Amino acid sequence: MAVPTAYQGNTSAAVREWLNKGDNAWQMVSATLVGLQSLPGLVILYGSIVKKKWAVNSAFMALYAFAAVWICWVTWAYNMSFGDKLVPFWGKAKPALGQRFLIKRAALPATTHLYHNGTVETAMSTPYLPMASVVYFQCSFAAITVVLLAGSLLGRMNIKAWMAFVPLWLTFSYTVGAFSLWGGGFLFQWGVIDYSGGYVIHLSSGIAGLTAAYWVGPRTASDRERFPPNNVLLVLAGAGLLWMGWAGFNGGAPYAANIDASMAVLNTHVCAATSLLMWTTLDVVFFKKPSVIGAVQGMMTGLVCITPGAGNTPNLRTRRRRPGILIPPSPFTEIYQLLTSTNV
Amino acid sequence: MAVPTAYQGNTSAAVREWLNKGDNAWQMVSATLVGLQSLPGLVILYGSIVKKKWAVNSAFMALYAFAAVWICWVTWAYNMSFGDKLVPFWGKAKPALGQRFLIKRAALPATTHLYHNGTVETAMSTPYLPMASVVYFQCSFAAITVVLLAGSLLGRMNIKAWMAFVPLWLTFSYTVGAFSLWGGGFLFQWGVIDYSGGYVIHLSSGIAGLTAAYWVGPRTASDRERFPPNNVLLVLAGAGLLWMGWAGFNGGAPYAANIDASMAVLNTHVCAATSLLMWTTLDVVFFKKPSVIGAVQGMMTGLVCITPGAGNTPNLRTRRRRPGILIPPSPFTEIYQLLTSTNV
Amino acid sequence: MAVPTAYQGNTSAAVREWLNKGDNAWQMVSATLVGLQSLPGLVILYGSIVKKKWAVNSAFMALYAFAAVWICWVTWAYNMSFGDKLVPFWGKAKPALGQRFLIKRAALPATTHLYHNGTVETAMSTPYLPMASVVYFQCSFAAITVVLLAGSLLGRMNIKAWMAFVPLWLTFSYTVGAFSLWGGGFLFQWGVIDYSGGYVIHLSSGIAGLTAAYWVGPRTASDRERFPPNNVLLVLAGAGLLWMGWAGFNGGAPYAANIDASMAVLNTHVCAATSLLMWTTLDVVFFKKPSVIGAVQGMMTGLVCITPGAGNTPNLRTRRRRPGILIPPSPFTEIYQLLTSTNV
Repeated sequence: MAVPTAYQGNTSAAVREWLNKGDNAWQMVSATLVGLQSLPGLVILYGSIVKKKWAVNSAFMALYAFAAVWICWVTWAYNMSFGDKLVPFWGKAKPALGQRFLIKRAALPATTHLYHNGTVETAMSTPYLPMASVVYFQCSFAAITVVLLAGSLLGRMNIKAWMAFVPLWLTFSYTVGAFSLWGGGFLFQWGVIDYSGGYVIHLSSGIAGLTAAYWVGPRTASDRERFPPNNVLLVLAGAGLLWMGWAGFNGGAPYAANIDASMAVLNTHVCAATSLLMWTTLDVVFFKKPSVIGAVQGMMTGLVCITPGAGNTPNLRTRRRRPGILIPPSPFTEIYQLLTSTNV
Repeated sequence: MAVPTAYQGNTSAAVREWLNKGDNAWQMVSATLVGLQSLPGLVILYGSIVKKKWAVNSAFMALYAFAAVWICWVTWAYNMSFGDKLVPFWGKAKPALGQRFLIKRAALPATTHLYHNGTVETAMSTPYLPMASVVYFQCSFAAITVVLLAGSLLGRMNIKAWMAFVPLWLTFSYTVGAFSLWGGGFLFQWGVIDYSGGYVIHLSSGIAGLTAAYWVGPRTASDRERFPPNNVLLVLAGAGLLWMGWAGFNGGAPYAANIDASMAVLNTHVCAATSLLMWTTLDVVFFKKPSVIGAVQGMMTGLVCITPGAGNTPNLRTRRRRPGILIPPSPFTEIYQLLTSTNV
Repeated sequence: MAVPTAYQGNTSAAVREWLNKGDNAWQMVSATLVGLQSLPGLVILYGSIVKKKWAVNSAFMALYAFAAVWICWVTWAYNMSFGDKLVPFWGKAKPALGQRFLIKRAALPATTHLYHNGTVETAMSTPYLPMASVVYFQCSFAAITVVLLAGSLLGRMNIKAWMAFVPLWLTFSYTVGAFSLWGGGFLFQWGVIDYSGGYVIHLSSGIAGLTAAYWVGPRTASDRERFPPNNVLLVLAGAGLLWMGWAGFNGGAPYAANIDASMAVLNTHVCAATSLLMWTTLDVVFFKKPSVIGAVQGMMTGLVCITPGAGNTPNLRTRRRRPGILIPPSPFTEIYQLLTSTNV
């Protein structure tokens, strides 16, 4: 049977034999959805959840971080995270801006791992899309990580200090986590599984946020006593973009618009909704009335919890990983996965 | 002619022979756009179109409904709406959460209809994407229906009463409409056509809203006298997400990124724009000046009106429906369809 | 090798041999993202960046323009911009609403250009998607152009005068630029390259805005003295949708989810981020502190600057253009292109 005209398309430099346009469309959309989570999502969420006097400062911290990560990412950090191996936890820094590099078919990890006898241990995965789409998608991940970190420092950090902190933390911390797990580093070799950023994104930004908050010190006494959100509707606007954008966050991780992507997106929404309702129920039980900020907290907890496992769909796994460490992301996620893997 | 590498892809569990990644990408995007219509779209629209004292309560009603529908949907309501036939207006309740079910190719209606002699009367439609994507897309439809219903009750319903109402209405009302028409029930058998929710979504939420508002009773006298929106810009933010998200609402209904989807999206925007301008013109004629809230009303009217017919493109229909009842969704839509079917 | 079921799909009226669903999905998403840039993006950005007393009026100017363009576009302006040649700078006005026209495969320019001896000089480009998707995508371009123009007139124009101005300017100015360059007009024949709207969109709305502002006259003295934004967080919300929506603006221009689209999107984000940081740096150097409104200005400058060249990727060009005029869009873009074409 002949191939329809529309799917032959291997006749130009812009449409190569390895390009699946469905995958590439989904990857660009996913990356854009993750971008929307940060900007305007978290930018307005931060700006509106703090006291009025901190509103502009908080929003600007997030906006600046988003922009600064872009520059660092394409100039050196992408390759430190996903490029050729330098040491078991770091890739070699170099730009990811050149045209010849970006129009090539994506390949991860960049370094093929060999057994001592020279045979291939871990083959590169080569999705049906160009490097440019992967650099874009992963940049939006790196950016949201730093923006999430900013959340720990709202209302207690000088904007100029933050301006210096962002490129430093991205370069010396984020790249290490990303390379170790996703770039083919030692955690990847050990068999650690992190579907879409439970460690690389959430654990890393969480620990960094805690540490940074510790060093920066507490908010002023008056802020600690009372810190009401200055605009609840804008908090919800930001929270809504965060939830819906997570369809790109977890849906884009397989680098394909495949069945796994669909499963991951569905799991994500179910978990967010469950967690939101659970928090609201607890608010009613313990405080006698539901709280909208509590609901948003619950929603976020659900989104973060499901991320490391959202697309680890047993029936879709094609190859066995070596026996290794599979750190359970959280008891919550484990229970959830148990529930959803029950076959109906 | 050989198939390009990128379109062979039937070699893994996550990419089956029946998976069209362009269709699947579009379905996930469409579902996400419909999600954005509710959250943050209608959440902030409701929160800002009411008096300030009702802002948080109204937004929370919508947010809660969105989350609650998710849980009911995957636990029992999807299959009551689209699953195996129980009675001519209801499907059999069961979860749509199991992995084996969700990774299968989508099939609607779930029950094949046979003639008395045993030959197939209505074959299942089997889009080129997994059940997971259909469950997601239809969940966002169910959710927005309940959120639309909430619009009739803003500022006059206790949040706890609403919390009980949502799962009950979804279970005992929405599923009936959905199964009767889209799940292969009696209206479907009669040949009633509802392209993307004129009845299942808008008529059902409209009637329910009217009924509920009747039972709940009117707003307080002072609210009825004066009920100004507390933030016009946020009303427009919500309205904008509603309009643009409708591209997913009507564009996703064919379960494919096909020509019909393109037609439906174009029709949708033209109708929304026409209705917005018509309302604005009437405002100028009768009240001597345009009104931004009137424009938003006009926009919504247009979107709702076109929905049942947006993609009923005569030249794209592949099989004759049996002679049946085609209830015209509204005079407006009929006139519009007449205009657009004129061939240039 | 057999074609997988999912990619055979040339068996129905709604899925023709020439339809690539990945391309069509991307085109509809891109158009929707551009729509989101205007509504709610610029609608709320305008409403919030002006003085409070101008908020609703400014937002309404943008909303009206968005709706009005839709009607003009499908009724006469699409074909004046992209239809059959009337004169070297204009196409023949006629509706783009008929079903038979819209379900056909897209073809641009509509008039094939021939040498004097009758051989084809410029063949039509025929993307793998229906006319309906192109009419939608280009409508969102026309709409944002008028909305951008509105930016020059905020707080100094009567809404009724604006209502008359929009269809006139679209008809007698926008269509001329669009046809001359993209519709196969004289600038196209001369070899002028405008990847995604540096001239057709930004230069044209910029000049029109300047001219219109000149004729309308300055704001009142008190407005000129002090014109603070009434809501900085909403400015950022609008700005965020503008930035992220640009992924559709520049990514949709190749009419395909191909490698060029990926390159264009990546270039766009890098340029926006660079320009934002540059403006912020200059704010720190000259005014001793960063400014969030300055950052937004920088972001926009970057987005506008990269547009005419975002996807002019030398290695992806398949055919030589005739020696012609390539007007450099701006020194900034030139330098940027130089930097990015360095191969790593």
